[in-house]
Amino acid sequence: MTVVKSTIPESARQVTGDALQSTLVDLLGLSLIGKQAHWNLVGPRFRSIHLQLDEVVTAAREFSDTVAERSAALGLPPDGRPETIASAFTLPGPKEGWVRDTEVVGVMVESLEAAIGRLRERITATDEADPVTQDLLITITAELEKQRWMFDAENWPKDS
Amino acid sequence: MTVVKSTIPESARQVTGDALQSTLVDLLGLSLIGKQAHWNLVGPRFRSIHLQLDEVVTAAREFSDTVAERSAALGLPPDGRPETIASAFTLPGPKEGWVRDTEVVGVMVESLEAAIGRLRERITATDEADPVTQDLLITITAELEKQRWMFDAENWPKDS
Amino acid sequence: MTVVKSTIPESARQVTGDALQSTLVDLLGLSLIGKQAHWNLVGPRFRSIHLQLDEVVTAAREFSDTVAERSAALGLPPDGRPETIASAFTLPGPKEGWVRDTEVVGVMVESLEAAIGRLRERITATDEADPVTQDLLITITAELEKQRWMFDAENWPKDS
Amino acid sequence: MTVVKSTIPESARQVTGDALQSTLVDLLGLSLIGKQAHWNLVGPRFRSIHLQLDEVVTAAREFSDTVAERSAALGLPPDGRPETIASAFTLPGPKEGWVRDTEVVGVMVESLEAAIGRLRERITATDEADPVTQDLLITITAELEKQRWMFDAENWPKDS
Amino acid sequence: MTVVKSTIPESARQVTGDALQSTLVDLLGLSLIGKQAHWNLVGPRFRSIHLQLDEVVTAAREFSDTVAERSAALGLPPDGRPETIASAFTLPGPKEGWVRDTEVVGVMVESLEAAIGRLRERITATDEADPVTQDLLITITAELEKQRWMFDAENWPKDS
Amino acid sequence: MTVVKSTIPESARQVTGDALQSTLVDLLGLSLIGKQAHWNLVGPRFRSIHLQLDEVVTAAREFSDTVAERSAALGLPPDGRPETIASAFTLPGPKEGWVRDTEVVGVMVESLEAAIGRLRERITATDEADPVTQDLLITITAELEKQRWMFDAENWPKDS
Amino acid sequence: MTVVKSTIPESARQVTGDALQSTLVDLLGLSLIGKQAHWNLVGPRFRSIHLQLDEVVTAAREFSDTVAERSAALGLPPDGRPETIASAFTLPGPKEGWVRDTEVVGVMVESLEAAIGRLRERITATDEADPVTQDLLITITAELEKQRWMFDAENWPKDS
Amino acid sequence: MTVVKSTIPESARQVTGDALQSTLVDLLGLSLIGKQAHWNLVGPRFRSIHLQLDEVVTAAREFSDTVAERSAALGLPPDGRPETIASAFTLPGPKEGWVRDTEVVGVMVESLEAAIGRLRERITATDEADPVTQDLLITITAELEKQRWMFDAENWPKDS
Amino acid sequence: MTVVKSTIPESARQVTGDALQSTLVDLLGLSLIGKQAHWNLVGPRFRSIHLQLDEVVTAAREFSDTVAERSAALGLPPDGRPETIASAFTLPGPKEGWVRDTEVVGVMVESLEAAIGRLRERITATDEADPVTQDLLITITAELEKQRWMFDAENWPKDS
Amino acid sequence: MTVVKSTIPESARQVTGDALQSTLVDLLGLSLIGKQAHWNLVGPRFRSIHLQLDEVVTAAREFSDTVAERSAALGLPPDGRPETIASAFTLPGPKEGWVRDTEVVGVMVESLEAAIGRLRERITATDEADPVTQDLLITITAELEKQRWMFDAENWPKDS
Amino acid sequence: MTVVKSTIPESARQVTGDALQSTLVDLLGLSLIGKQAHWNLVGPRFRSIHLQLDEVVTAAREFSDTVAERSAALGLPPDGRPETIASAFTLPGPKEGWVRDTEVVGVMVESLEAAIGRLRERITATDEADPVTQDLLITITAELEKQRWMFDAENWPKDS
Amino acid sequence: MTVVKSTIPESARQVTGDALQSTLVDLLGLSLIGKQAHWNLVGPRFRSIHLQLDEVVTAAREFSDTVAERSAALGLPPDGRPETIASAFTLPGPKEGWVRDTEVVGVMVESLEAAIGRLRERITATDEADPVTQDLLITITAELEKQRWMFDAENWPKDS
Repeated sequence: MTVVKSTIPESARQVTGDALQSTLVDLLGLSLIGKQAHWNLVGPRFRSIHLQLDEVVTAAREFSDTVAERSAALGLPPDGRPETIASAFTLPGPKEGWVRDTEVVGVMVESLEAAIGRLRERITATDEADPVTQDLLITITAELEKQRWMFDAENWPKDS
Repeated sequence: MTVVKSTIPESARQVTGDALQSTLVDLLGLSLIGKQAHWNLVGPRFRSIHLQLDEVVTAAREFSDTVAERSAALGLPPDGRPETIASAFTLPGPKEGWVRDTEVVGVMVESLEAAIGRLRERITATDEADPVTQDLLITITAELEKQRWMFDAENWPKDS
Repeated sequence: MTVVKSTIPESARQVTGDALQSTLVDLLGLSLIGKQAHWNLVGPRFRSIHLQLDEVVTAAREFSDTVAERSAALGLPPDGRPETIASAFTLPGPKEGWVRDTEVVGVMVESLEAAIGRLRERITATDEADPVTQDLLITITAELEKQRWMFDAENWPKDS
Repeated sequence: MTVVKSTIPESARQVTGDALQSTLVDLLGLSLIGKQAHWNLVGPRFRSIHLQLDEVVTAAREFSDTVAERSAALGLPPDGRPETIASAFTLPGPKEGWVRDTEVVGVMVESLEAAIGRLRERITATDEADPVTQDLLITITAELEKQRWMFDAENWPKDS
Repeated sequence: MTVVKSTIPESARQVTGDALQSTLVDLLGLSLIGKQAHWNLVGPRFRSIHLQLDEVVTAAREFSDTVAERSAALGLPPDGRPETIASAFTLPGPKEGWVRDTEVVGVMVESLEAAIGRLRERITATDEADPVTQDLLITITAELEKQRWMFDAENWPKDS
Repeated sequence: MTVVKSTIPESARQVTGDALQSTLVDLLGLSLIGKQAHWNLVGPRFRSIHLQLDEVVTAAREFSDTVAERSAALGLPPDGRPETIASAFTLPGPKEGWVRDTEVVGVMVESLEAAIGRLRERITATDEADPVTQDLLITITAELEKQRWMFDAENWPKDS
Repeated sequence: MTVVKSTIPESARQVTGDALQSTLVDLLGLSLIGKQAHWNLVGPRFRSIHLQLDEVVTAAREFSDTVAERSAALGLPPDGRPETIASAFTLPGPKEGWVRDTEVVGVMVESLEAAIGRLRERITATDEADPVTQDLLITITAELEKQRWMFDAENWPKDS
Repeated sequence: MTVVKSTIPESARQVTGDALQSTLVDLLGLSLIGKQAHWNLVGPRFRSIHLQLDEVVTAAREFSDTVAERSAALGLPPDGRPETIASAFTLPGPKEGWVRDTEVVGVMVESLEAAIGRLRERITATDEADPVTQDLLITITAELEKQRWMFDAENWPKDS
Repeated sequence: MTVVKSTIPESARQVTGDALQSTLVDLLGLSLIGKQAHWNLVGPRFRSIHLQLDEVVTAAREFSDTVAERSAALGLPPDGRPETIASAFTLPGPKEGWVRDTEVVGVMVESLEAAIGRLRERITATDEADPVTQDLLITITAELEKQRWMFDAENWPKDS
Repeated sequence: MTVVKSTIPESARQVTGDALQSTLVDLLGLSLIGKQAHWNLVGPRFRSIHLQLDEVVTAAREFSDTVAERSAALGLPPDGRPETIASAFTLPGPKEGWVRDTEVVGVMVESLEAAIGRLRERITATDEADPVTQDLLITITAELEKQRWMFDAENWPKDS
Repeated sequence: MTVVKSTIPESARQVTGDALQSTLVDLLGLSLIGKQAHWNLVGPRFRSIHLQLDEVVTAAREFSDTVAERSAALGLPPDGRPETIASAFTLPGPKEGWVRDTEVVGVMVESLEAAIGRLRERITATDEADPVTQDLLITITAELEKQRWMFDAENWPKDS
Repeated sequence: MTVVKSTIPESARQVTGDALQSTLVDLLGLSLIGKQAHWNLVGPRFRSIHLQLDEVVTAAREFSDTVAERSAALGLPPDGRPETIASAFTLPGPKEGWVRDTEVVGVMVESLEAAIGRLRERITATDEADPVTQDLLITITAELEKQRWMFDAENWPKDS
């Protein structure tokens, strides 16, 4: 017996559900590694990067809530438990302990870039299945691409 | 060579650092399982519990930031990476998939109770080592005890 | 002689206009039956559902304004007069007089579900005709699906 | 068996209930025709009248909520369903399609004037029955008379 | 020698003063028993009722201030001391210790109903004596009747 | 030919119009003498009275606007021109030049008392003619009686 | 014996005091005639001009307070009593009763223009005497010239 | 069977519960006598003391809520019913009727001083039993000592 | 060597970059001509159109920022320098000097219409290349079409 | 025939008009090059300079509005069209494409310095002609000098 | 080598720098003695003067920031170090320990008066050197003269 | 004769008073040197450090007020006069004139570290004497340790 009924057909539910669940994991993971870098950052650009990382965390937290609630709205229970994130999250993040500012900027560019690549695949995948979900993924991509640019612009010249 | 210098003596740093690191894990874990329950909740009290869980999540997120920054302030780099939480978090949480409201209330009472028990031990442990950290742990305990009471009051009679 | 000129070609105007006009009627109707339930509700979940219904009403009112103004922007005068709503509105709503909370939850799930089904058809229909209108319909669908989920989650187990 | 008990005697309930129910219909109807005019207005005074109509709509919506909740508070379930408004609403409103600004101003003066006349009768009718309801009707009359004046002042000279 | 002079004639002062003083006691008493229930409530509707009670308390506190200051404005010193409330307050309230949610809803319906009955008598009594005071009592009655309805609607079916 | 039409019958218009016009003059006059005292006050209670006078001015200005717009709403053009106020205003006010704080308190008590006496007569006069206007006069009286009390309480013992 | 001492020399006080006192009268008068026009306005531009007049009134009231307090700060008690304004105010204003919008626009242009001319003379007069007062008069002139322009721009073509 | 479970051991519960219950009574009593003085105050310092008393009332109300909820959180149902306050409240307060400002200042100094003395005893008593409760009592003491100082500073020279 | 890396393939970058750069020029140009009209407007509808133009300017400025940052986010440096706007901006705008209100309304309808036509082409062009950019262009089109409608509705009858 | 009349004599109008028109061009140009740098900036100080540039843009936009409206207020239509800015703007700005942070800081120091030099000449020029305009130019200079200092302080040591 | 370059000529820099540096010392000193009086005040006007002193402190702190940043903007490093204030500050202030309210009022009148006298000399001194700095000094003088008046008005009769 | 009475015993007053007075001097001194550095800072990190210093100043000012008022609340008049700060303040601060950003960061780490060391001694010293004061010192230490960490993190690698 169905708990929460879906408003999209059976055929569309699998691809949409996968897209939302993996986006949820990426966003929760990003919010955790963003905070990790926010706390362990050292170097002359400490304050600038410290504040910028909180913007990534705020965006990631808000989008994770929207993504999970969208999944529930489609009758697909989202999974954001600690063990799920730890096993499913694959984006690069800062190593343990203090991290130099240049290093943090580099790892955020990489991590956001990987997240964006995965989101773009899901935008294509959900095009037929559910345009409502696709529209949400497009919105998230726009924000993460903006964040990625700002870290990348900060990262120049590459060897500084 | 020290990266960030500590303002408390060597002898006090170990116990304070342990108290803060394990509190950080408990709070980050609570914020994740609180959201998990927030999304997967079903039952006639859905809206009430859905909103109440967000208050737990908000408190847990804000305290986790204060706790991690206090650790950094003492020269001890905090660790809130996904893999750390997954391996170190031991409080009970909701199972995968949809969860009935009565069940959520029950698991939150248990989880908060366990967190409080652990915090009270750390309050005792840090009494000598660092009264500033102790004061923060007292503040967190007050809030979690208030949250626990509200779920417990909601949980009566036990078999409803 | 044209009063307000359209910025989309003649061929696209009919389908877009129909989609917007019928969405307008659905939203104005939803705002009226949402308030009707908000006022006539009785039962132990009175306060929770009373507040939740106002969120539906607020969303329906705001979207109805956007939809009607989009219709006007395309040179198509929208029709939201009492007699038009009464004759064109077909979604289920609460019966006259006091209504039990369980009943209200059930009728809102049904009514929102019917509205969503109709919106999804219009999303498909406007895909070629006007992507700007389609984008608006997608946004409305996302919100109504979220509202529907929350009533459905509240509606469990079905016989409670 | 009574669902919601009344705090006024049986004798007073009929006249008070009638006054509230017909006021509710007038206000909900006004909110719908106010929006209809807001969307379909054309002419050199578009922006001024467009904004002024929204003030009427806002007032009508807020008062309709207060009136309906007052009815419920007296144990009389209010009726604001689409079919009720369509059949019971008798105030003049704008015709279908685009409407010239001068015409809108004229129809709003007429419609508000009719509403005020009906409210003044109900103020007299409820004087004995329920001074609390009467006080609410007085407040609504004050606001609608203010709105009517502003449209009437805008309407001068009559043939402009 | 008069301390604060009255702006109403001697003949009107007694009835107005009595109406205000007894209303003051009822409102201060309501604010205390509302908080008592707010704190001692248990049961599955804990959060809903807990929040609703605070709305009663807020209203009762604000009105008590207006009522007492109106009494002072008429040259009649109001009396809201603990011993006065304890001896003069006669409305029903929750018993000592934890109280079940259904019981709280019931006692609030009764207590508000008794307060309303007493206010309606004072509205009649002050009609001649002081229309300004009467208008204040009408405003308070409207709010308490609204609060009473919401608890009564929540109280259905009576045996739930 | 009528410019702005009245919604009350011919017979009621004279008494209502007179009540509103003379109230308008009293309020505009009060706002001017309140500011005069606010600026010319000297004495150890300067700051307290300086701030309190601004509350009288704010109230008088807001009520004057409501009163004048109510008059216009009834088709009776209000008159608040400088020469009208100067010739029609009869309440006592501060003399020219610096004024001692005790003196200001005394003159405000007198001036507000006179204004209240006149308002109470108009409340009686408009009872039949227009309950909407009467309700506004009651509201103004409540506020001015509150202000009068506060100056009178400040004025004790009379010879201090 | 001096009540409030002046911080500018005897020689400068006369010219500065005259400039401030006559500016005070102009501003209080402008605030009264602005409101008079705000209430008695009729014509198709009612709403636009009605709102614009309130901006003049707000500016005039705020500046009148600053001007009067500046006068007091220089040890010169300002005079803003009703009789003073009536006898000293010389700027043109609206006639009694309803006034057509075109006429209001015209009279506001004239009245502001006259006020500006007088202010520019006082700017010159206070140049030597008190640069602090001069700076205030410059600020007021900037605002009144802006208001005058907006009415003048609205007044085109002159015969419309 | 326990309704709300305690998170502190049996041995600590008695002393903590007593400290919280008697603090609750003191704070609710203070909020009532603070308002009593706020309303019945007369004398040249009326406005200053009137406003200052509201700060005491606001603080007392907020702390009473925190104290009562802390008691509930420890499984100890708080008691703030009118009869409890009347019988248990022992701090000095203003007598019935109008009270001179100097007298109010004196009684507030005494009443706050007595409250502080009792709080300091409870701070010592709860040191072992519950550091979380102790921390709350410390916070309350800081605020009441600040309020006491301000009344005491106002009270100088004693015979003024 | 690349400065800011792109997250879309080489093939998609040209069409997306062109769409964004030409939209940037259109929006910056619109913000400049909107302000030009805002300042140089004359005629009886001055205030209405003056305020409406600022809404166009605000929208154009905010969208220009989003568009330029989106271009940067894709690794394509945007160009909004004065000389670029002057040479690339092709939409119609107001002539030099004072402009009559009817003329301003007409030119804004034309200018917005031209901008919309160009945006709709870019929506089609970017459909394959970058759905994220397309979504942004859709949002901008919706707003400009709304603005265009309001000027067009104001523009009726065409010869007024 | 004059459209908007001037309140300063013919002789003063030319110099004042020139000062305002050239200031308008400088400010609009600064707002465009500030945004250009805001978008195209790269380097380790990206975030700091990115945010600081927006403060320049905000100030330049607000002052450009005040300057243009002051010009209109003096009867002199301001010119801020794209072609005017492009031909009349002479301050240095960033080159096309990405720009290194050090370079941006340098060019902003130069550009603001040039703008300040020109403003100081206009302050002298308008001293006799119009002290109101002069006062506005002084205010703008103060803000631009503050901005210039902050970029200059950031620019040290010059070769970093 | 110059660190921050000046935008005024060498000749003007000395007098402007001296004016700003001595104003900075006066303002920082005023903020310290204002707080000293705020804390140590006793007497029946405690609350009034306590709050008024904080307005002086707030103004002095904000102006000190503007003055110091203006100095930096002119290439002249400001000096606000503790030892500088202590040695250069010459205005009268409260003595050590508790201070009676009458005494505080007196000393604030004297201290502000001395500060104003010094500011007026600097206004004259900077007239040629830098009108931007002069304008800032005029603004500060206006505020301090307003504060001085309010203490002086409070100080009447002198022997009270 | 005592002016403000103390609520702690004679024996505890000396140590508590010393702790508060020396903390007051440290905080007022920190607020002055923080501003000094805020104004005189140069170097590529200007904006970041400029803003961060203002957070130190804000915290230092707010805590200084709380500390001084706590001292007064205990009957001990605080001393924050310029000469007291100059002679008693011993923490390191920036030298006169422009200071390089790296140098400022270094001196702030040192100064905050010294302040923290002194605070920790006072926390120990007041443990017995006054837990309320101790709690305040703990709160201040937490904030200063957070500020110190952020400057220290910014200070890495030490030789950058």
